Amino acid sequence: MAGRPRRYCGRMSPASRYAYLGPEGTFTEAAIRTLPESATRELVPMVSVPAALDAVRNGDAGGALVPIENSVEGGVTATLDELATGTPLMIYREVLLPISFALLVRPGTTLESIKTVTGHPVAQPQVRRWLAEHLPHAQWESAASNADGARLVQEGRYDAAFAGEFAAATYGLTPLVTDIHDAENAETRFVLVGRPGRPAARTGADKTSLVLWLGDDRPGALLELLQEFAVRGVNLVRIESRPTGEGIGRYCFSVDAEGHIADRRVGEALMGLRRICPKVRFLGSYPRAGLDPSQVTPLRQGTTDEDFAEASDWLARCIDGRA
Amino acid sequence: MAGRPRRYCGRMSPASRYAYLGPEGTFTEAAIRTLPESATRELVPMVSVPAALDAVRNGDAGGALVPIENSVEGGVTATLDELATGTPLMIYREVLLPISFALLVRPGTTLESIKTVTGHPVAQPQVRRWLAEHLPHAQWESAASNADGARLVQEGRYDAAFAGEFAAATYGLTPLVTDIHDAENAETRFVLVGRPGRPAARTGADKTSLVLWLGDDRPGALLELLQEFAVRGVNLVRIESRPTGEGIGRYCFSVDAEGHIADRRVGEALMGLRRICPKVRFLGSYPRAGLDPSQVTPLRQGTTDEDFAEASDWLARCIDGRA
Amino acid sequence: MAGRPRRYCGRMSPASRYAYLGPEGTFTEAAIRTLPESATRELVPMVSVPAALDAVRNGDAGGALVPIENSVEGGVTATLDELATGTPLMIYREVLLPISFALLVRPGTTLESIKTVTGHPVAQPQVRRWLAEHLPHAQWESAASNADGARLVQEGRYDAAFAGEFAAATYGLTPLVTDIHDAENAETRFVLVGRPGRPAARTGADKTSLVLWLGDDRPGALLELLQEFAVRGVNLVRIESRPTGEGIGRYCFSVDAEGHIADRRVGEALMGLRRICPKVRFLGSYPRAGLDPSQVTPLRQGTTDEDFAEASDWLARCIDGRA
Amino acid sequence: MAGRPRRYCGRMSPASRYAYLGPEGTFTEAAIRTLPESATRELVPMVSVPAALDAVRNGDAGGALVPIENSVEGGVTATLDELATGTPLMIYREVLLPISFALLVRPGTTLESIKTVTGHPVAQPQVRRWLAEHLPHAQWESAASNADGARLVQEGRYDAAFAGEFAAATYGLTPLVTDIHDAENAETRFVLVGRPGRPAARTGADKTSLVLWLGDDRPGALLELLQEFAVRGVNLVRIESRPTGEGIGRYCFSVDAEGHIADRRVGEALMGLRRICPKVRFLGSYPRAGLDPSQVTPLRQGTTDEDFAEASDWLARCIDGRA
Repeated sequence: MAGRPRRYCGRMSPASRYAYLGPEGTFTEAAIRTLPESATRELVPMVSVPAALDAVRNGDAGGALVPIENSVEGGVTATLDELATGTPLMIYREVLLPISFALLVRPGTTLESIKTVTGHPVAQPQVRRWLAEHLPHAQWESAASNADGARLVQEGRYDAAFAGEFAAATYGLTPLVTDIHDAENAETRFVLVGRPGRPAARTGADKTSLVLWLGDDRPGALLELLQEFAVRGVNLVRIESRPTGEGIGRYCFSVDAEGHIADRRVGEALMGLRRICPKVRFLGSYPRAGLDPSQVTPLRQGTTDEDFAEASDWLARCIDGRA
Repeated sequence: MAGRPRRYCGRMSPASRYAYLGPEGTFTEAAIRTLPESATRELVPMVSVPAALDAVRNGDAGGALVPIENSVEGGVTATLDELATGTPLMIYREVLLPISFALLVRPGTTLESIKTVTGHPVAQPQVRRWLAEHLPHAQWESAASNADGARLVQEGRYDAAFAGEFAAATYGLTPLVTDIHDAENAETRFVLVGRPGRPAARTGADKTSLVLWLGDDRPGALLELLQEFAVRGVNLVRIESRPTGEGIGRYCFSVDAEGHIADRRVGEALMGLRRICPKVRFLGSYPRAGLDPSQVTPLRQGTTDEDFAEASDWLARCIDGRA
Repeated sequence: MAGRPRRYCGRMSPASRYAYLGPEGTFTEAAIRTLPESATRELVPMVSVPAALDAVRNGDAGGALVPIENSVEGGVTATLDELATGTPLMIYREVLLPISFALLVRPGTTLESIKTVTGHPVAQPQVRRWLAEHLPHAQWESAASNADGARLVQEGRYDAAFAGEFAAATYGLTPLVTDIHDAENAETRFVLVGRPGRPAARTGADKTSLVLWLGDDRPGALLELLQEFAVRGVNLVRIESRPTGEGIGRYCFSVDAEGHIADRRVGEALMGLRRICPKVRFLGSYPRAGLDPSQVTPLRQGTTDEDFAEASDWLARCIDGRA
Repeated sequence: MAGRPRRYCGRMSPASRYAYLGPEGTFTEAAIRTLPESATRELVPMVSVPAALDAVRNGDAGGALVPIENSVEGGVTATLDELATGTPLMIYREVLLPISFALLVRPGTTLESIKTVTGHPVAQPQVRRWLAEHLPHAQWESAASNADGARLVQEGRYDAAFAGEFAAATYGLTPLVTDIHDAENAETRFVLVGRPGRPAARTGADKTSLVLWLGDDRPGALLELLQEFAVRGVNLVRIESRPTGEGIGRYCFSVDAEGHIADRRVGEALMGLRRICPKVRFLGSYPRAGLDPSQVTPLRQGTTDEDFAEASDWLARCIDGRA
């Protein structure tokens, strides 16, 4: 660990410690290192998403970075479900990481000599086509993580591992081929999670995350829920159903909406949802990764904070007889 | 006028004067006399709806009672258009009056001897069937008002007039037949209009009147407008399109919604309309005639003031990091 | 009548006779004369809209032209209500007529000498401003029709009448001032009504007229009705509520939609309305006056007849297992 | 295999062969054995969902049974994604299986002596609470499948495995504890998939599965999609977003709706979706497991096949002039 001076295990307070889905050498570690403050935090790899989030809940860490969505594989259900249930947590930041793989080998290994390859099961669909073309006869076996696969290559158990190129150094391997990805633009979205508190400051290019439970299995309940957003001109960027665990056919919805809870259109939509849903969990408002305010979808007419303020003043004048 | 001690022309201040659509002896006069305060007001008949409303605008009267809707004939367009345009006015009260006609004749006239009948053109469709059955050969001619028809019978110009039974005494006539009405439950709705001020107090069985202009002739604009009400659980009891005068195909909408502007669901709907419509005119919130709170449509779940307050508190806690 | 060779009373079959809202010299006559076939029809003025429509119902006339909407005054309720109730009728054509008035006087009359003016009550709001400016001291009295006003001027009872310029010759009057209209672009829409039959041929710039009854006074019923149109991309050009006569708060809706019943998007919307409304009256599909196909609102994607046919074929293939 | 007389490997035609997600002893095998025809089919375990489905695509099997949804873990993404992409397949049947676990041990093992337990990763969240209570110190390691975990216990590598009780015999183990499940009513839904063909016959308690792509990332596209169902009174029982693989924020929707494609309300909704979505994949209509027609949600008024037929007849009469 001498090469990683930014970690001072045991010397920092829990609040300055960030847990992440480990082990070292995974894409999650690469993602957490893109955060400016990671240079002054203790970064602690955890064995699972629940373990990383529990470290935050228990006060062992001030924050945790976990994957929440992959453009190829979809939502990371462990993260979605952990955020929807149990002791509440909140999202304060998101990180988008382009995902492309390197084929890591022990120094000296040639492509022709590779008989066995490994990697995380999630990696497989993203390299399947490349494998079929370049290593049609190699045998695939899954590893617990991409980093773990690299370790197994280091130990000689497999000939090659798919992992992030950044993992090569950690395990004394060489990236034989880089930039492997079946799908163009594959990326993974990670979120920095903390204990509930004041949401991240508004930037003008924000996102608000919620979990919404439908009242009953009455037809049209989802439609009504979407109308609470639509009528205030709030766009959704993600909606995902998750089982509530009460049986087939019972779902809650994990939703990301454009805008910040301090935007009045978003606030009014949230209050509307709070009124019609038996349960709403606010998961935070935070800057949209990779988007500056100039790229945000233009607001529908009549939905700026000024429009809300003007309408509110008008209502007050009507009620007071000064309209 | 000796028989009408409640009128003290010239002695009362304009504010204590009520204008109404005259002449004396019409249903509008009968309606205004149902108001408790009419006993202490100077009641001034006017020749037209615009004249009655202008008396309020000019300060010559503190209020004006005018018909706004008839269950057989529909909206009274002069009233709807006067309220939608020009110097703003507001509605503070409504009166529902069952409409049935008496056949007024000079004392001694028998049904068999009636050759000519008169009445206001609006009366005709409401007595047409009765006429066809009982006086198939009588000739109808229209009068400027029902009361005017009675006067013309008094003067001997027609044999009989359809008018309110209450008009008989005024014109020295006899009600030969009473309770004539082709349609069951025919009634007329009148509104008491004043200069803009604080709306009538909330009673729990209220109504809110608005005029709404659509932004452009974009398809779906009316649908969006209705959704502003629907999403907050506010029911409409009347919607009527009126031309804006800018050409065929350009309309505004005269709307009555259940509830009071001080109800939070109504207030939020009004603010939403204010934001999406280029123009909104608030015409007042006032008690629904003939309806006590126990008869009001039950509110949709999540739309009481308590629900709004709870959601608002929750939002504040989320924003402050105390959720 | 020698000057009107196109009328051959009594010599033509009833089917070739067109009734219209009279008397001669009104805007309705001007409108009917814009129809190409009016040259070979017997044109019969009637005393009222119901009388004109009853002539069609009774077989005394093959068609009737009546006003249905005025850009200043709104819907012509007699026409709307007659079409909504009683023996069914259908609309086969519409005529748009710009409305501007001439001030008709006896030859020799000067503006300064005019003390009294007359005209139809509907004319008054359209010339009010002109009157206030040019004849502020003239006294207005209403006539039964604009043409009737002209006749009363001919007889010497009033000094001047507002009417269509075309009425001057009929009554031996002179148009002292022409092109009088307070509102720019004032126009009246007339419809040619006949007994039910095959709708007018599709032109690509059509309109479909309906009367729709709401099932109950359930909140949201109007919203559902509008959604039947919206979901198939059918735009509304007019919607007007009319009382059903069953008491305050009970309405039906008179609706004009873009498109022809033979357009599949319109047909599907009509079937949807038929299923959700307790009663629907189809009043016809006919060419939109003053609009050629190039001016029609572009169709929303996925709503052409080809789109419907393609979707229908696809469904058939799915059901047959050939998708 | 002597104990499984219903398998006659190699002797049956591929069409009579059913692939399933293996290995033997899993819940999927238990599910496939609930199908009446499984007695006369060759049942072939496959290593993965894609492998099972490819067997159908390649003609090596007439059908494949794969899990699609778990009431605790949610959608089985491998199945959802395989059905949404590649060579089309269709669903012909669904099977609901209550999921409860047995703790399988080698004969003679006691609860107190258990130090290590294994099972499929999906099993873990369903037994976590039980483990914490009864075996707080046992160490969990994941196996490739529940059946594989049982095999590893048989081989002595772990002390106990969570699996279906039915797996005990296959691996010579004893169910030490049965009926273990953290969540009440946990169940898994499986689907029987085949090559595209005529959908399963209508039973009156059916379900229709679709994959829908949204046209663009235009806000409100999902709302429009839901309205195509809602306006025809078709209820959704499941909706799940899946990434299209084109980058974060691009989704398609996997949807189950109540009713059969041969129901006219469902057919019309499907045609509507076909018109507004750039791509729709029909995955089949088939009986809803565990539901007889008497338990189906009552249809909304106006949405039966008779209502559609009546409306269609009415439209034809209108177009023909016989309404």
